[in-house]
Amino acid sequence: MKAIGFTTSFDLNETNAFEERDLPIPTASGRDLLVKVKAASINPVDTKSRNTSDGEFKILGYDGVGVVEAVGEDVELFHVGDEVYYSGTNTRQGSNAEYQLVDERIVGLKPEFLSYAEAAALPLTALTSLEALFEGLNISTNPEENTGKTLLIINGAGGVGSIATQMAKELGLTVITTASRKETRRWSEKMGADIVLNHKHNLPDELKAHKIDGVDYIFNTHSSDAYFNVMADIIKPRGRIVALVNFKDKVDLNALKDKSVTFSFEFMFTRPKYETEDMIEHHNYLRKLTLLLDRGRLKTTLYKKLNGLSVETITEAHQLIEQGNSIGKIVIEY
Amino acid sequence: MKAIGFTTSFDLNETNAFEERDLPIPTASGRDLLVKVKAASINPVDTKSRNTSDGEFKILGYDGVGVVEAVGEDVELFHVGDEVYYSGTNTRQGSNAEYQLVDERIVGLKPEFLSYAEAAALPLTALTSLEALFEGLNISTNPEENTGKTLLIINGAGGVGSIATQMAKELGLTVITTASRKETRRWSEKMGADIVLNHKHNLPDELKAHKIDGVDYIFNTHSSDAYFNVMADIIKPRGRIVALVNFKDKVDLNALKDKSVTFSFEFMFTRPKYETEDMIEHHNYLRKLTLLLDRGRLKTTLYKKLNGLSVETITEAHQLIEQGNSIGKIVIEY
Repeated sequence: MKAIGFTTSFDLNETNAFEERDLPIPTASGRDLLVKVKAASINPVDTKSRNTSDGEFKILGYDGVGVVEAVGEDVELFHVGDEVYYSGTNTRQGSNAEYQLVDERIVGLKPEFLSYAEAAALPLTALTSLEALFEGLNISTNPEENTGKTLLIINGAGGVGSIATQMAKELGLTVITTASRKETRRWSEKMGADIVLNHKHNLPDELKAHKIDGVDYIFNTHSSDAYFNVMADIIKPRGRIVALVNFKDKVDLNALKDKSVTFSFEFMFTRPKYETEDMIEHHNYLRKLTLLLDRGRLKTTLYKKLNGLSVETITEAHQLIEQGNSIGKIVIEY
Repeated sequence: MKAIGFTTSFDLNETNAFEERDLPIPTASGRDLLVKVKAASINPVDTKSRNTSDGEFKILGYDGVGVVEAVGEDVELFHVGDEVYYSGTNTRQGSNAEYQLVDERIVGLKPEFLSYAEAAALPLTALTSLEALFEGLNISTNPEENTGKTLLIINGAGGVGSIATQMAKELGLTVITTASRKETRRWSEKMGADIVLNHKHNLPDELKAHKIDGVDYIFNTHSSDAYFNVMADIIKPRGRIVALVNFKDKVDLNALKDKSVTFSFEFMFTRPKYETEDMIEHHNYLRKLTLLLDRGRLKTTLYKKLNGLSVETITEAHQLIEQGNSIGKIVIEY
């Protein structure tokens, strides 16, 4: 099978160590599915993973969509021929290959009315958002309980922000996002944002201009360092904050004390990486996601599609992500 | 009325600025109750509050028990003659006086079968524990959902640890506490701890000796700095940590990233201080507490009782707390 990967960590501004190899198709055992990959999307974590080489040929790609070609002896949830999607794990070979093994507990049935590319855009950002909303932010699944509650999503037009906005609207929340360019503001509004603040301005002032004293929840999909003090300022008493990105500096956590604020990191790979007992939650969340997509309650966040699995398309997708101003999701259809 | 207070911040090791004054009995208005105080307990926050003088005569005392003598015009929940208990707020005059005003939304009916002193031991530590367990740690109210889940309470024999242990057992959790002296170990076991670790030893090793790989929840009622790294080490993936005490140093929060850990501060005064819309949660929590005490499901954590409202008893209670090795709660009966 064709696979794109690398053997030594590299900086795309200096060199390109991606290479194509012809590898044997792996064999499914245990709870693994062998998936013939039809499309993959590229996330910021893909670009960061170029720094994690251990000298072995490493295939990146987390989000994947494809068809089940074979199943391990313990597989219970899927059959050969099923169309599936998933965001995988950072501990195994990825979806930038013609075939891939993936544990059924972190896989869902692909939404029926979405193309491979449209579906590939979603799993990683949707799982991140679902875990953040329901676990980190502890938001009720009952929209009636969320009426009048406000969620601020920092970087609303990014991959995570785009699907998180839609989900939060589905949950009945008032959703405030941030964006600065005309295209990103428009995109965030299209995703359902009630208010789009300009993150180039002072956020507390921007909120005050909308007569908002504070927010109940914050989902920061951007720099944790840049926004920590602002978040501590605008979060309501007993509010909750979720962040995705590592801090560069140590943190003055006491800023959260007086208001009894909760802070969580959301790292989508925690469950598959640690193989937690409740790892099947990813399967359950993807079922919920598929249901909402099938019913037309959510839409894909696909923004740009590249064609064909090759060093060129993988490289282009990584470069687009690293430019840092992409909108929605970039997908490669194989 | 007699009241004990101070006008300048002071260190009890150097001087004693507590003084007795004869003040007019305050008048209840709005949602305030005028309570004739029968007993008060002293908490670590009392001793810290000796540093917060603004030059006015400040009456300390948060936990209080007494009889409603008069009610404001908007009071709905209580009547004159009701026996009540509460933990008050850090923004008003406290319970170290013969009479006190307190907002009805943070008051509960005193448990029927407890003495004034036994009841006075509980509100502040119980509200702290209830907010920590149900909000910060997000523990289910359904014991069946908690079977097999482990909670580590650091400093199990302290005032908060003593009532938190009982509540966590009531919720079906496996409760691991820490203590080091024979008396504190015995007390923590009496409160219901399943396992008492020695916090003078290495906690990860102590857990391993009990064949425990990690814990689902941690409630750290002791130094946040001293335990941060240990907590990051022993918490399970997607686990939750609550702390009570400010950090002295900045924190390497990234230690919580890989396992998607949630960290919360619990500060019981947040709701009354900010007068949040849901401030009445304190009344609701105290109702729950009273019910459990009336049914004999929880017991008082009173350990030592002093008699009479005076500079001497207040001083002695502050000194006992500051020695740092007290067990359960110290109460002064007026």
